[in-house]
Amino acid sequence: MATPDPVPPTVAWRAGRIRLIDQRALPGRLRYVECATVAAVVGAIVDLTVRGAPAIGATGAYGVALAARTERTPAAVRRAAARVRRARPTAVNLAHGVDHVLAVHDAAVAAGDDPAAATLTAARAYAAADVRANRALGANGADLVPRGARVLTHCNAGALACVGYGTAVGVIRAAHERGRLHSVWVDETRPVLQGARLTAWELDRCGIPHTLVVDGAAAGLMARGLVDLVVVGADRVAADGAVANKIGTYGLAVAARHHGVPFVVAAPLATVDPDTPDGAAIVIEDRGPDEVTHLGGVRVAPVGTTAANPAFDVTPAALVSALVTEVGVVERPTRARIARHLREAARGD
Amino acid sequence: MATPDPVPPTVAWRAGRIRLIDQRALPGRLRYVECATVAAVVGAIVDLTVRGAPAIGATGAYGVALAARTERTPAAVRRAAARVRRARPTAVNLAHGVDHVLAVHDAAVAAGDDPAAATLTAARAYAAADVRANRALGANGADLVPRGARVLTHCNAGALACVGYGTAVGVIRAAHERGRLHSVWVDETRPVLQGARLTAWELDRCGIPHTLVVDGAAAGLMARGLVDLVVVGADRVAADGAVANKIGTYGLAVAARHHGVPFVVAAPLATVDPDTPDGAAIVIEDRGPDEVTHLGGVRVAPVGTTAANPAFDVTPAALVSALVTEVGVVERPTRARIARHLREAARGD
Repeated sequence: MATPDPVPPTVAWRAGRIRLIDQRALPGRLRYVECATVAAVVGAIVDLTVRGAPAIGATGAYGVALAARTERTPAAVRRAAARVRRARPTAVNLAHGVDHVLAVHDAAVAAGDDPAAATLTAARAYAAADVRANRALGANGADLVPRGARVLTHCNAGALACVGYGTAVGVIRAAHERGRLHSVWVDETRPVLQGARLTAWELDRCGIPHTLVVDGAAAGLMARGLVDLVVVGADRVAADGAVANKIGTYGLAVAARHHGVPFVVAAPLATVDPDTPDGAAIVIEDRGPDEVTHLGGVRVAPVGTTAANPAFDVTPAALVSALVTEVGVVERPTRARIARHLREAARGD
Repeated sequence: MATPDPVPPTVAWRAGRIRLIDQRALPGRLRYVECATVAAVVGAIVDLTVRGAPAIGATGAYGVALAARTERTPAAVRRAAARVRRARPTAVNLAHGVDHVLAVHDAAVAAGDDPAAATLTAARAYAAADVRANRALGANGADLVPRGARVLTHCNAGALACVGYGTAVGVIRAAHERGRLHSVWVDETRPVLQGARLTAWELDRCGIPHTLVVDGAAAGLMARGLVDLVVVGADRVAADGAVANKIGTYGLAVAARHHGVPFVVAAPLATVDPDTPDGAAIVIEDRGPDEVTHLGGVRVAPVGTTAANPAFDVTPAALVSALVTEVGVVERPTRARIARHLREAARGD
């Protein structure tokens, strides 16, 4: 692909710092935040400057590389890595990215190599692999998109959720590049509005026709025959195929099943966690009630009203038509089919 | 009921004007708008100063009484009534309220009586009947609420959607008064946030425990066994039992069915329209895209992004566990059962 990506990299290394697109400022402004310390990295993950499972995975990978430069001892690097690792609980990618580069760090220390250089190389490779994986995943997923499809997506599983290209949005982009796509319905995705702010911004930059709707409109669109396929990303896929993803995903899956609309989950292998046996084992992050009771800093609910704000929900594998990864498609995923897919992927490496 | 209602009347006649709670200012401020002209009444309905099917029905009734005072000829009153009647298309109650008082007007004109006095008496009776009906409806619906129930509701079918007490919220209030209610999940109800702004405000004033959630969280709450009953209002119930209600209602009904959670529609008889044969015959109002692309006047979506904004959706009778009116409960509503209910109600009058 010689043409530059219309969406700049979400996470990059630049002159000894981690440069992140500040996703809180989109779509109004394309602004960057540079993290020079591990504390800044943790803060950027917690406050959603960077969000999206693969993106925080890459941020975690670079975070260890940063720690290898800023901390004085291997033990301090490990403590810093642990702080980054627990900045958010649900996406397995964060732990995956941290652990991957921390293993390189420890090996470099043991071998007497320069851990700063080794971890930076490893983090860069980890980030580059994300974009490569997403392009492969997009191509695999586009095979599932019917010609002229109107595709609905939720939250942002786009370039901004990754290092580049996107997972669910990667499928949409690949289908668009092949001329198979009619248009995209974008769920606004309350409370943080990743659909309205981020997915719409990416699709706009990519020139892909799209229409924004409130989350409550999706089932009615299906009833009216206006949705041919739903594609979403994932924050964690358990060994049994249960999918943790942005709150609202599960209701979409139920509605898709009710209407016979295919429900596709697009997630890189790093999101599939064989160590999480099932959906019940996935830790669901509860975020603060202010995201629901306030809009743009202004309280919309009465002062006496509290809110519950689970950030994710869990969709059982039985509601998933297909799981798409960078190595292929798992139709009607089950524990056995996912295990086989992971084995085949490991052999292919 | 000797104690004053904790929620003041939504619509009232006061010194020759129609006084409306300005629902756009809630929950921040309890402010009133007084309409002295038919144009002001139409404007208040269009801009959602007053909203909710029974509330705009009563506003329509008072609107004709106002026209009978401000217009010079019976023909001008009829033209004014027609303008009020078409201010919003989906709720049948608006047409019902206008037609009811306009018939009184025409009879008074024919009989040589004072149409201004006759229409005001009729409009006041229409409004008083709304509160009476809601209290009866609430009592009927409370019979369906299991002891200790956690009830989920969507949008605002409360006192603010009526003249007083509420329909779906009336069921909740009656269940609470009987000590049967554990608590209420309130869907925030994008895009206009009637749940966060209005239902939460009413429940807060009534001292009913409640928790606000984003619309996308409802299905996940059901999956976790945290919802015992869903109760919603209706803007129009077709002869076959199809229910037009706030966008998002249909997805809730699908999710409730998937989880075996009872899905109850609370609506006064005035909302049931035997002249609308089925759901496909219900006109769904499309509102402007700005309600979705902007929050509090600030654009949240990219400039290049448009939105679709259907205000309502249609839930087929097959997904409705029970329809509750002021005269009783129609279990598993069908065309035949609704017709029988309407016949029995007419005989009972």
